[in-house]
Amino acid sequence: MGLIVQKYGGTSVADPDRIREVADNIAITRRRGDDVIVVVSAMGKATDNLIALADRVSSIQSGREMDMLLTTGERQTAALVTMALHERGVDAISFTGSQVGIITDTAHRKAKIVEVKGDRVRASIADGKVAVIAGFQGVSTAKEITTMGRGASDLTASALAGAMDADACEIYTDVTGVFTADPRLVPRARKLRRVHFDEMLEMAGAGSRVLAMRSVEFARNHDVPLHVRSAFTWEPGTWVSNEEPSVEDPIISGVVTDMSEAKVTVLGVPDRPGISAALFEPLAEANVNVDMIVQNTSTDGTTDISFTMPMADLRESESIVQRVADDIGAASVTHDDGIAKVSLVGAGMKSSPGIAAKMFRVLADADINIQMISTSTIRVSVILPAPDMERAARSLHSAFGLDSAADYSAPLPERR
Amino acid sequence: MGLIVQKYGGTSVADPDRIREVADNIAITRRRGDDVIVVVSAMGKATDNLIALADRVSSIQSGREMDMLLTTGERQTAALVTMALHERGVDAISFTGSQVGIITDTAHRKAKIVEVKGDRVRASIADGKVAVIAGFQGVSTAKEITTMGRGASDLTASALAGAMDADACEIYTDVTGVFTADPRLVPRARKLRRVHFDEMLEMAGAGSRVLAMRSVEFARNHDVPLHVRSAFTWEPGTWVSNEEPSVEDPIISGVVTDMSEAKVTVLGVPDRPGISAALFEPLAEANVNVDMIVQNTSTDGTTDISFTMPMADLRESESIVQRVADDIGAASVTHDDGIAKVSLVGAGMKSSPGIAAKMFRVLADADINIQMISTSTIRVSVILPAPDMERAARSLHSAFGLDSAADYSAPLPERR
Repeated sequence: MGLIVQKYGGTSVADPDRIREVADNIAITRRRGDDVIVVVSAMGKATDNLIALADRVSSIQSGREMDMLLTTGERQTAALVTMALHERGVDAISFTGSQVGIITDTAHRKAKIVEVKGDRVRASIADGKVAVIAGFQGVSTAKEITTMGRGASDLTASALAGAMDADACEIYTDVTGVFTADPRLVPRARKLRRVHFDEMLEMAGAGSRVLAMRSVEFARNHDVPLHVRSAFTWEPGTWVSNEEPSVEDPIISGVVTDMSEAKVTVLGVPDRPGISAALFEPLAEANVNVDMIVQNTSTDGTTDISFTMPMADLRESESIVQRVADDIGAASVTHDDGIAKVSLVGAGMKSSPGIAAKMFRVLADADINIQMISTSTIRVSVILPAPDMERAARSLHSAFGLDSAADYSAPLPERR
Repeated sequence: MGLIVQKYGGTSVADPDRIREVADNIAITRRRGDDVIVVVSAMGKATDNLIALADRVSSIQSGREMDMLLTTGERQTAALVTMALHERGVDAISFTGSQVGIITDTAHRKAKIVEVKGDRVRASIADGKVAVIAGFQGVSTAKEITTMGRGASDLTASALAGAMDADACEIYTDVTGVFTADPRLVPRARKLRRVHFDEMLEMAGAGSRVLAMRSVEFARNHDVPLHVRSAFTWEPGTWVSNEEPSVEDPIISGVVTDMSEAKVTVLGVPDRPGISAALFEPLAEANVNVDMIVQNTSTDGTTDISFTMPMADLRESESIVQRVADDIGAASVTHDDGIAKVSLVGAGMKSSPGIAAKMFRVLADADINIQMISTSTIRVSVILPAPDMERAARSLHSAFGLDSAADYSAPLPERR
């Protein structure tokens, strides 16, 4: 007997047949004796369709009204899954984010959770009911309906799992788990049996789209193991937890690739205090999500500063940076939207020096030029030309022993 | 300067183009200086589509979950109309039924309004905003999302108009107003300029689908004039108010036809006290909406009792009645699903005796057999064979002077 949170993504509930399969799985979990909290996304393309509808109706789309519109998708799924559970003889009840007390700040479309009350969920569980909750949404401190950004149903799930002290949080998504690399790029990529929270956070930061960073943070802070798996195959997926890697585990857990960023470089920047602040403060104010920043040591009294940001923010970033460059007397501003980021992530890196050096050697041997470098204790990321990304990922995957390791064939430590 | 409630039905907001037209109309009303409260239905077939989805997912559809599902349609329209208003420079804000405090009882799918708080509507109006409200829905005294039955967006509109003391409530629907008869059956039917609340209630009871009875009752009780009109032609429609008919007005306002009912007859019922109660109590408990009831005076110690009810309730009614008939020793039970109801409605009837007699004469001259008769102070209804309905309606329309009266050509008393 435990408490399991199950989150079903959009593809898992895309049509009535899929919803019935999901209800079967919930019913099986319930009959095994566990209490179950379910969090659902909108069906398939429902959210995209609502956005398209809004585009056809008005060019002015306030956050509040978009939230009023978009939250309906998850509510529909929640009601439908609940009805399907009733047909299977499983007592269940649907709730909106507001009804279960997911309290957020007032930033529409990207609200942050400030509190999870969960009173009605607790009462339902005590009544022996499965609580089916519309993901992605909450109610603000100003009593308005809010959403927490795309993919935030994962966040709803891990936040509820944390608040309810759940034993596990199962994330049903459109992949079967977390892989050593993107299988579309690296054919020899393998599914990982387990990943540490810290690794998953670095992978998300490096561009992995399997789990949103905020939902991993919630799970780590409340120490709720996440089980990433597929509602199409129902096979065991990847456990994301705080379990430390054993000595037999490979040093590197995965190669993460990301083509969604662009790079801006400011050349000939006078090398004096305050220059970086002058550059990055206005970008922060414009909500540009700057990722990597590299500044070389000054040689001739000037330096070059490069940074990356989401492709969508390139135009705005460049115009802001051009203005600042003029102010501070920099030589020129260039940009490059043909870049890719390749990262190695592995908790074993902490106790194994020389990973970065080996990575650079592998790329050099493949004749791939590195443009920028950034490191953390368990990650090394490089920026390189986009056309080289796939080759870089495959080379690194082989060189770090990820092609052959039989990680997933080991017996599972968990009960499912 | 006044306060106008505008309700837009499903066909009026069926697609993005229609929504933009509706926003134009709201903007015009607002710029004329009136405060505006808007109530919207779900877009076109949205509610039907959600019901079809539920049918494909589960055979068990609890009222609570269906209400969770179906209320999303109106919320989507409310958000979209609000965005379209923003684009037109009109300050506006959308609300759910719950957010504006439409408090209902706990009967899901057919909840009754117990209170309209309207605090947020009042605050929005005071701020100069158009309040756009999702119709059809409220929040129960048990804090659950409820709906008030099909067509209840009219009810939302008239209830809000009453609670807010509005000057008028415009109901935009798929007809241009209230007609002297159904124009599809009676080609010479004309649009009425005005109808008294009492007449409209009798018309609704007699089977007219233009306005739901409950919404007319609300408007009458709060003395809010309703203006029934079309969002396709925008031409002046029909005013429904408490204005008494003048002496020049025709005695009869309209002929109402209805083919949606069936008839059950219990033959050879012992004529003793308590028989009617024994028959109709179990029907009421089964929520069968019995309409007309006719019992003839007993001659031989037994009598026949006939009643009509919605076609959909026929099967259940018959099985209940058969059981009761056996208990009370009635001779037999028959049913007839090939009937029609034709009603004459007119406030002038009160001061003009002989309307019923003239009606029976007209039908007799047309060789149409009357099966049941029911009357109120301003209505006479007869049940006749369904194939005779159209001919009966046309004959009565002519005989009571409705073909020729030029009611709508008179100048409008109201300002729009």
